[in-house]
Amino acid sequence: MAGIRMVGFDADDTLWRSEDYFRAAQDEFEQIVGRYVDIDDVADRLYAIEKANIALFGYGVKGMALSMVEAAVTITDARISASDVHRIVGLAKTLLQHPVELLPGIRDAVEAVAGAFEIVLITKGDLFHQEQKVRDCGLADLFRRIEIVSEKDVSTYRRLLEEFDCPAEAFAMVGNSLRSDIAPVLTLGGWGVHVPYHLTWAHETEAEVAADAPRLRVVASADALPEALRSIHEAAAGA
Amino acid sequence: MAGIRMVGFDADDTLWRSEDYFRAAQDEFEQIVGRYVDIDDVADRLYAIEKANIALFGYGVKGMALSMVEAAVTITDARISASDVHRIVGLAKTLLQHPVELLPGIRDAVEAVAGAFEIVLITKGDLFHQEQKVRDCGLADLFRRIEIVSEKDVSTYRRLLEEFDCPAEAFAMVGNSLRSDIAPVLTLGGWGVHVPYHLTWAHETEAEVAADAPRLRVVASADALPEALRSIHEAAAGA
Repeated sequence: MAGIRMVGFDADDTLWRSEDYFRAAQDEFEQIVGRYVDIDDVADRLYAIEKANIALFGYGVKGMALSMVEAAVTITDARISASDVHRIVGLAKTLLQHPVELLPGIRDAVEAVAGAFEIVLITKGDLFHQEQKVRDCGLADLFRRIEIVSEKDVSTYRRLLEEFDCPAEAFAMVGNSLRSDIAPVLTLGGWGVHVPYHLTWAHETEAEVAADAPRLRVVASADALPEALRSIHEAAAGA
Repeated sequence: MAGIRMVGFDADDTLWRSEDYFRAAQDEFEQIVGRYVDIDDVADRLYAIEKANIALFGYGVKGMALSMVEAAVTITDARISASDVHRIVGLAKTLLQHPVELLPGIRDAVEAVAGAFEIVLITKGDLFHQEQKVRDCGLADLFRRIEIVSEKDVSTYRRLLEEFDCPAEAFAMVGNSLRSDIAPVLTLGGWGVHVPYHLTWAHETEAEVAADAPRLRVVASADALPEALRSIHEAAAGA
């Protein structure tokens, strides 16, 4: 085998901060709704509605905001005021306007990896918002392809690898989500580098990947990425 | 010149019905809000808010729904009830679940054009919703590429034509929107076939294209498309 030929990077919470802002919005949502009801499962009830709406709304800020509006009405038994609903729409606007904040060490790590392999960016969510962040992140020129997809599952990665003309065995994906970045690529016979983030949306933890799965490396931070990929490259070359 | 090599098709209101459903949602919105205020410029005030939000939300149903929620709060001076806000979110869900309805004659027209030229689909809006419609429309296999973009302007078409490796002079775009389908392609030196739809969102009419612009054809319905493209092909070959 020729080793690794191409490395894919996830974006949200891998290249730049994202879940922190979603979590802050959710905290504000809980405060707004908390003025109407005294219950401790607001977060669970919001997540249940978000999850039920994914099939219609997909991922991203706008879908989250519509689910929040719906959850606010339901949770308060339709007592929430119009002004508070307006504040919830405002949470979405704040999220969409947040400047891109790269994670520590990521610029050096991506540049080092780009020096050794072809790299591509594979991110899911809202096309408009993701394009904005890609444009603003200052790393876009390093990537050979930038793919914004609506779902990151086995069939998406299969299609992309065909388009890239890259066999799965020669592809490694770097990301913070076991569900979206690691599990489907391992299933296809590719390699994964899991970089856990300190916050993970419940949805993205719903995956079963053994910590000792073959072709998986786990690193604690961006500066360990180049070495992890070198080691994967050698293992793939020897396979 | 070798004539036309590639034909691009718009999707919403060119291949399938879309604006009718948006308009129905807007009518419902006006009825909901009309129970709180007696004014006749609800549609204008909604459009003003939608337009101001495009830079943040982009196009599509979810952004429209968030703008509607915001407009409902503003227009009613925050008097709108939570239940009515919930109904507005419901309008978005109805729109997103609407089955794809091809326009009369479009299947035959697209098949005929695909027999003569390479065809591509270029549509803007929400990635998730557009992918759903493309999957359900039954025409996807005819297109060599399907491009869902966040904006259809000169720079988008320039990038796509580079990716397609097709000079603008050999490209014709078919669509209902002068602003998004015709004007930018003509600007680049390409050809346009305008198929006006009986309803057009105010935003899409904001373009200046002379009715007698060179390299533009206007047809009344899908069945005139193959002939219009043949005539463009001959004109391009003779240019």
